[in-house]
Amino acid sequence: MTFDERLRAGAARVQERLADFLSGTRGPASPPDRLAEAMRYAALGGGKRLRPFLLVESAALFGVRQENALDAAAALECVHTYSLVHDDLPGMDDDALRRGRETVHIAYDEATAILVGDGLLTLAFEILATPETHSDPAVRGELILGLARASGWAGMAGGQSLDLEAEGRTLRADEIRHLQALKTGALIQYACAAGAILGRASGQDRAALDAFGRLLGQAFQLADDLLDVTGDEAKMGKRAGKDGDAGKATLVSVLGLEPAHAELLRLEGEAIAALDRFGERADVLRETARFVSRREH
Amino acid sequence: MTFDERLRAGAARVQERLADFLSGTRGPASPPDRLAEAMRYAALGGGKRLRPFLLVESAALFGVRQENALDAAAALECVHTYSLVHDDLPGMDDDALRRGRETVHIAYDEATAILVGDGLLTLAFEILATPETHSDPAVRGELILGLARASGWAGMAGGQSLDLEAEGRTLRADEIRHLQALKTGALIQYACAAGAILGRASGQDRAALDAFGRLLGQAFQLADDLLDVTGDEAKMGKRAGKDGDAGKATLVSVLGLEPAHAELLRLEGEAIAALDRFGERADVLRETARFVSRREH
Repeated sequence: MTFDERLRAGAARVQERLADFLSGTRGPASPPDRLAEAMRYAALGGGKRLRPFLLVESAALFGVRQENALDAAAALECVHTYSLVHDDLPGMDDDALRRGRETVHIAYDEATAILVGDGLLTLAFEILATPETHSDPAVRGELILGLARASGWAGMAGGQSLDLEAEGRTLRADEIRHLQALKTGALIQYACAAGAILGRASGQDRAALDAFGRLLGQAFQLADDLLDVTGDEAKMGKRAGKDGDAGKATLVSVLGLEPAHAELLRLEGEAIAALDRFGERADVLRETARFVSRREH
Repeated sequence: MTFDERLRAGAARVQERLADFLSGTRGPASPPDRLAEAMRYAALGGGKRLRPFLLVESAALFGVRQENALDAAAALECVHTYSLVHDDLPGMDDDALRRGRETVHIAYDEATAILVGDGLLTLAFEILATPETHSDPAVRGELILGLARASGWAGMAGGQSLDLEAEGRTLRADEIRHLQALKTGALIQYACAAGAILGRASGQDRAALDAFGRLLGQAFQLADDLLDVTGDEAKMGKRAGKDGDAGKATLVSVLGLEPAHAELLRLEGEAIAALDRFGERADVLRETARFVSRREH
């Protein structure tokens, strides 16, 4: 299987698992039809499913079968999707297009989009707290604590707040790095950490995956910023140049195109090197790092 | 101590614990200042703290000391507060006044209010997943699963979605009851259930508290709807008559004022009766039921 095939197969399995959770038949009570439908619209509309892929492949390093990592992976994707739905709201970035389709507040309405985000965030914790996700409640607890920290006020939501504050201001490179570490880095780092939690990895293995996740998160964001300048709107399925239009500072605007590209290659190399201790077992994660920094959408 | 004094003392302890969590010094990373400040504005601005009080007093039935129930109580209040912040948004109820002060999107801005809600919801799960909340990860897991179900798409968020769908329509009494059971009932019922989880109560004790919580939730909402018609805006700290203005159906508009009041007294009696098996130990919860159905704000 090529890497692309493996990524696509992983995305298909996550999509299946998400569809199962979002059918509304797993819990003791049924959700209202309209909200459930809008949550499915938001979560099942495609996407690379990179974060769940990282979680599944990180867990695989420690012998966890894909089947046993998919619930946690689906929960993680719920959090990622919620953040996109809220980010697209008129009161935030006011975007009409996402993954090539109307955003939730356009396809439904603003109030529904707020509730879709709230519902997906809450569902993520419901999934992680369910015994089927892992038989050991201590493992489930670690997964939950890590996800809450990565996505909350000192993680992703905090990064979005810094992003709001940054509009119209000129940030220094270190401020941009901090903002991005929270806004996109934290959840990508968590994806790798969650695999290690599921696999009951040793402290040293966890530290290595943490470093990989941190570097990969930086590379991901830098690649995104480069694509925002150089990318093809049709391939991305969203508006290109939106950060530049909004006056948002990125490392590309501060460092310049060529230095930013050089930094991206350096990050890719460091991320791959962080996996040294795992030998060949980590080849898929290495290819993921190459994919992340060289993708065209 | 009178009941009012006990309720106020409980609110003060919850406020203290919330302030501690919201200081941003408990976790491994610091949240951005502006978001943290807005979250404190939202969560520390007063309120009766009824849900945390119910949790603490339900736990006390099983010998759990207040000190050991306050973390879970603070988490629950975070969820309640998040729901108010999002409910007040321009895209939802568009309210400018809450607990006698400007709502978060007025005092800050809309984007910040969205993130404040997201941050508080996530913080609730972070608190519940922290070992300090309870030493047994299985207990923490049960608390998390229960909260996610009570507040998510098949609970509170689902109720808010039904509420949106109901605008401009005439609901039947049973539809209103279902909507309210989700929108406000689920979290009040959870408050009581969480006390039983913390106290490792027996199945029969849990069932009794579940029934109490369900009936109390119904009484709470009915009392709220009656106050919306007959209440004093200054005492309530929010706009009176807003449900009538918005064309929202309530049991008061469907049943009429007197029958609604009679139903409220019936619910109060049934809630109190559900506590029979606990004897005098449950006197505070009985007084809470009286307080909920007879409050003036």
